[in-house]
Parts: sequence; C-alpha cells; structure tokens
Amino acid sequence: MTSTVNAPAAISASPAKGLVCRACGAEYPLIAQHACYECFGPLEVAYDADLLARVTREQIEAGPQNIWRYAGLLPAGQDPATRVTLDPGLTPLVSAPALAAAVGLRAPLWVKDDSANPTHSFKDRVVSVALTAARGLGFTRFACASTGNLANSVAAHAARAGAPSIVFIPYDLEQGKVVTTAVYGGDLVAIEGSYDDVNRLCGELVETDEFEDTAFVNVNVRPFYAEGSKTLGYEVAEQLGWRIPAQVVIPMASGELLTKVDKAFAELVEIGLCEAPEDGWTVFGAQSAGCNPIATALQSGTDEITPVKPTGIAKSLNIGDPAAGAYAIEAVRRTGGWMDYADDDEIRAGIRLLAETTGVFAETAGGTTVAVLKKLVESGKLDPEKETVVYNTGEGLKTLDAISELVGPTHRIKPSLKGAREAGLLG
Amino acid sequence: MTSTVNAPAAISASPAKGLVCRACGAEYPLIAQHACYECFGPLEVAYDADLLARVTREQIEAGPQNIWRYAGLLPAGQDPATRVTLDPGLTPLVSAPALAAAVGLRAPLWVKDDSANPTHSFKDRVVSVALTAARGLGFTRFACASTGNLANSVAAHAARAGAPSIVFIPYDLEQGKVVTTAVYGGDLVAIEGSYDDVNRLCGELVETDEFEDTAFVNVNVRPFYAEGSKTLGYEVAEQLGWRIPAQVVIPMASGELLTKVDKAFAELVEIGLCEAPEDGWTVFGAQSAGCNPIATALQSGTDEITPVKPTGIAKSLNIGDPAAGAYAIEAVRRTGGWMDYADDDEIRAGIRLLAETTGVFAETAGGTTVAVLKKLVESGKLDPEKETVVYNTGEGLKTLDAISELVGPTHRIKPSLKGAREAGLLG
Repeated sequence: MTSTVNAPAAISASPAKGLVCRACGAEYPLIAQHACYECFGPLEVAYDADLLARVTREQIEAGPQNIWRYAGLLPAGQDPATRVTLDPGLTPLVSAPALAAAVGLRAPLWVKDDSANPTHSFKDRVVSVALTAARGLGFTRFACASTGNLANSVAAHAARAGAPSIVFIPYDLEQGKVVTTAVYGGDLVAIEGSYDDVNRLCGELVETDEFEDTAFVNVNVRPFYAEGSKTLGYEVAEQLGWRIPAQVVIPMASGELLTKVDKAFAELVEIGLCEAPEDGWTVFGAQSAGCNPIATALQSGTDEITPVKPTGIAKSLNIGDPAAGAYAIEAVRRTGGWMDYADDDEIRAGIRLLAETTGVFAETAGGTTVAVLKKLVESGKLDPEKETVVYNTGEGLKTLDAISELVGPTHRIKPSLKGAREAGLLG
Repeated sequence: MTSTVNAPAAISASPAKGLVCRACGAEYPLIAQHACYECFGPLEVAYDADLLARVTREQIEAGPQNIWRYAGLLPAGQDPATRVTLDPGLTPLVSAPALAAAVGLRAPLWVKDDSANPTHSFKDRVVSVALTAARGLGFTRFACASTGNLANSVAAHAARAGAPSIVFIPYDLEQGKVVTTAVYGGDLVAIEGSYDDVNRLCGELVETDEFEDTAFVNVNVRPFYAEGSKTLGYEVAEQLGWRIPAQVVIPMASGELLTKVDKAFAELVEIGLCEAPEDGWTVFGAQSAGCNPIATALQSGTDEITPVKPTGIAKSLNIGDPAAGAYAIEAVRRTGGWMDYADDDEIRAGIRLLAETTGVFAETAGGTTVAVLKKLVESGKLDPEKETVVYNTGEGLKTLDAISELVGPTHRIKPSLKGAREAGLLG
C-alpha cells in the first residue's frame, strides 16, 4: 500500500508543504510515498519558503542540544510530544590539525564526528525524522532495509518508543551490527542476498496488506527520512560560527547524504542564516573501490549510474544501485567538486590515520572518507589552502574486524619489573 | 618517582587548594602523589570553600556542553588552552518509564547514559581531568593501568593531544577494548596477569627513572583523576533542573565513582546550587557476583574489604582489591543505601532489559547495575516510590561477546515474498 492518510496537525504545522518529484516536478501532499506516480522519479519534501525564512539563529541557538533545534527547517517533529527519537545530533566538530598536516592540507581541517550519536552513526538523524513523520501519518510499526547502522537505529528508536519493529538486513553483516540490532528485542530478518536484494524485497512487502501499518523508513517514508541528513549541514555551519565551509568530503552509499548537506547549505544562504563562502562551497564524494558506481559515473563524464555488485569491507556504503546517485553527481559538478574511491587497504589506513591524529575511531565508512580526502589532495582536486570538513558517519567499534588483524598490543610481558625490562620498557 | 613539580598557573587558578589524606588528614600541595607519606592512606583533592561558593548556576549554564562547564568545581582545566581532552560529558539523562515498570518502580526512573562519551565510557571524564592536571604538572607521556575502558580513553586523549602514551592491560581483555586502544597508535602492553597485577606493576614502574616523565592517570595523578567523576553527580542534578535525585544506583569497581557522585551532591548543597531532597539522597552500589568484595563487606556489616580474585563477564568492574571500597561503604551506610551484586546470567538479562525498554545498549557494567536495581526493588532496599537514577557507564559494543550467543536474527529467509511468506511474515 501507499498510505494516503492526511497529514495530521504535527506535520501540518511544519514548514513542509508537500512532496515534489525531483525528476518531473509533479506535486503531492505530505503522504507516505517515495516515487512519483507520473514518472517513477524520487519524491522530495518541498517547503514553504516563507515559513523557512522565519527561522532565526537565535531560535536555533535557544533550542535543544540535538537535531530538534532545527525543527523549523524539518518536515516533522515541531511538537516535542510527537517525536519518536533518541535525540541525536549536535555531534562534535573536531579540529584536526595533525590530520591536515598528514594529508597535505594547509588550511583548517575539521572532522564532523557522527559516531557520537546514540547508536553511533548518522542514521539516528534520519530515523528520528522518518519515524516522527511516520507516527504522524498513522503508522504503528517501524521497519527498514539496512546495511547495519540503520538497523541499529530503527530497532533502538522503536525500543525507546515502545513500538514494534521489523528490520531487514543482509545475512552477512558484521556481527557488531547484528547483535546491536537484535538486543533491542524487535523482529530481525536476515535475507540471503545483498543489500540491494533486501531493499527490493522491502519495496514489495510495503505493498502488502500485512505491512499496511508499517513504515519502512527508507521506502515509503523515504522523503521524510532523507531530510534528516540536512542537519549534518546545518550543524557544521552553526558550529563554525554560522559559516559554510569552503569544502566538504562526504561518504556516499545511496548518495543522499551528500545531496542533503548541499541542500542544507543552500537553505541557510537562502533564508539568510549564512553567507555563501566567497567562491561558493565545493562538495566531494567518497566511495569504496568495492562499490563505486557513483564515482565511476562522474569520472566517466556521465550521470548514468551502472549498478554494481558490491564487495569490500565498507559494508555500510555497499549500495550497488544508489537511488540518489545522479543527484549527487549533479551537486558535485555544480559546485566544482570531485569524487574518488579507496580500496580496502586504503580504507584500513584511513581508519588508523584518523584515529592516530584525532582520537576519533571511525568505522570503514569513515576510513573511506579519510582515504579519499588524502587522494583528493594528492590529485589536486581538493584545494589544500581552503577550509575543509570531512564527515565521519559511523563508529569503529562496529567494524572491528576490518582492522583487528592489523593492530594489537605492542608488547606482552610478565607482571614484573623484570618482564618490563626484558621487553625494553625500562630503556 | 613522585613528582613534586609546583602547581603551575592553570592549577593554581583552580579552586583546589591541595591534597589531603582521607585517612589521617595530612595535607599536601597539589603534587603528583596518591598515597599519604604518613599513613599510606589515599589522597584526595581539597578545595577552597570560598572559591567553590562563587560558582553560580548561570555560569555553569553558560559554559560549554561538556564537563568543562563545571571547571569552577574541578581541580584543573580552568583555562581552555590547558586542557588535554576529548570534551566528554553532558551525556543524556534518559527517561525510562518502561524500565521502571519492568522492575517495579512507581516513581520516575532515569538512566544516565555515559556510553555517549567520546570513547563510550565514563572514563573520558576522569582522563580529561587527570591528563589536564598532568600536563600542568609537567608530564609529557600519558599512561594507565586499565580493565579496558580507561585504556581506550587514555590512548584516544593522547592521540588528540599529539602526545605519546603507554597503556597497560590484562592480556585477556575483550577484543573490542584491545583494538580500540591499539588503533590510536600508542604503546600497548599486555600483562600476563589480572588487573590487580597490572595495577601493582604500574605502581612499581611509576617509581623508576624511565617513567619520570609519565603520568599514570590512576596512579600518580589519581587524586585529580578521581575528581572527574564528580561531574556525573553535577550533571544529573543540573539535568533534573538543579535537583538531587532521591536515589542513585552506581556500579562499583574501585568504588571511587560512587564516592564522587555522593561528594558532588554534597558540594552542590554546600555551595547553594541545590537543596538536598527532603529525606536526603540515598546511594546504592552494584557489583558482579564474580567480583563483589565491597558489597560482601557491607552486607557482612564490616568495612574491612577482603580482596578477591575476580571472575565473570563484567570485566570493567573486575577490581579485586578496590582502593575506595571502604569509602563507598561509608557513603552507602551514611545515606541509608545498600549494595548488591548480580551473576553473569543476571547481567546479560540486565543488558537486554535496558536495551528493550530504553534503546540504550550497555556494556556488562551497565547490565550489572540494571540487574542490581531490580534486586534492590525486589528486596525492598530501594524505595519504589522515590525518584531514582541508574548509571550506565559503558557501551554494549565493547562487550558484544557477553550477549552474542543470546541474541540474533529472529528469521532467516530467501530474498522473495515467497521466502517472507514461508517465514510467517505475511500472516
């Protein structure tokens, strides 16, 4: 089914005025629907420009220390009582001078560390917005197709809200992401296939009568879900003192996060909360070599994405048929950026480099982004003289296997001064 | 060595006026020393009451969103430029009505979720204060004896500060805690012994010339380190609207965290930032059955701690010879509380109960505390009609092994509607 429940008060009170097709511009009310009836293009939330323009820095700064300080710019959750949320967001923006030096940047470099969210990935942002909208639309069960982080987040959100959840994952996920979903007690369905198979099945299930009460955060309420990523743009700008950075490097799975950070910056300028940097901002995208359909398309000069069968350790980025790929390419081209990809060894090195220089322990997606940052500087695509923000979207504890063979104790000794001396610890 | 470097400006400017022996009251300047020269009793930071009394709610509320908002009540870090820190703290205080109902509480219950810290345990608080004091005292290398969480935190702090670190751990720690220390690139020494063996060796190393430049956060700068835990008391009171909760349940390893939360509440009353609850506050302590020397002593009516050889899954609580045990007993007796302990199965059940009812995924220490909360209600030791805060001090991702056999996918299916139907997902 595609719910056509009318938007209730909470959503009506939001600045969102409807859904609009990104491809053909067809307009829809605020319903649980993600693809255009006309052209099958993806739907996106459209806002009332006058309502957005009423939001002030002062309002935001007086708000809670989480994503809901930006409620005036989001499609749902204006009334705190309506929120289905773990209160994610306002994660640290970490100054990274040692990382800058290591990769050859001569301007300030920042790491936006979204591993600090409640379930330790940026997915808490999108899930909070999606489930809040979903509850407003009358759904009572929460679901998702996931590469892992989303599963953790949906299951945890449902547990806190006291609602049932059903989460679909590929059967070969990292154990850290399986246990961390299962522990919350909802249904957890392992699918014998890839993420793209999981996603396809969820697209079929959502049409069945048995799932009429079920919001799949990244299927039928996907337009609301996607808007949650805008907060990763707002926060960086606010944390820089209401300044948009000249360059951002963002990991890509579906490509949606990248497009929404770009959208957030555009909104901030449009409503007068920030000025654009002198030369505008430039957006860079990072993929893994095992799943690089967006970067490959951009580098080939096309915006036709050829789906791939993902491989490699960056499983949270392994979406072989990325829904927002063409829009990510558009944003990168428009802003003068570039995309690149890193292989598994480079990703592992990226994780270690980030940890050693900043104290931030990232999952493979973060390692990918740092590795690509390094490549972009080396290739001259990224300007080493301009302020740059690199996004870490997840937590190293969830992908320990990726580096557990590479790092460990530097010494093993008996519990005595003699043992310490023999190991060379006493000169 | 025991450094006698004079306290530099940063520490002089703090409200701390010296160290005092908890046993005999002997006084010392602010030096790197943790045991009394007179009686070998533990040293504690003493404050200038007039300086503490100058701190206002408004000052604190205008401060940063981390522990440093309480700098006026801490022994170091008043000048931001002097801090060696990941900026931990101001972690969520989560309302837990479903958990309250599950354990039989009829008053508000809150979970103070310290897994939200940068390295996902409360240790970031104590390490930030210890290393900031250590740098002020002239130390250039950072070290610790650790059951895991402290190792993560010291290594990460050192990486961010660009300083060398050397971390000592028992050889049999959970992999999650080993990799998460090693990834930051410092020295990591695995000791063939228990935590108590590790701690003993560090006490010997700190006296050698080769370690003269080295601050062991929980040995020679332990008095500063311990003060960091006070922030877990301040924050709960501030987050409750400057109100001290009637009851708190706190996990115990050395017992120090419990004594410092109690100390924090006392300070808040003394300096006029909070009123005491009508009947005062009551402090409860939680240990595991595999390492329960403090709880056993209390229950036996003595304050003589008999050291034990720790066993069981709650490794971060496995301190068999707890340095602050007698002081924890004193605080619990004085406030009319109690201590209890949970076995491994109860700890696992505690982790699951917390996750299912709140969306918070705790490590074994958190499972222990929730399990003990349940026991305390059942035994009538904790008043089910009074507001209660339970402390979760660490992250479930670090102790996945504890529950990975117990939870997992509820279904495994082929990627088709037929597969979903056969698994009963379509009615």
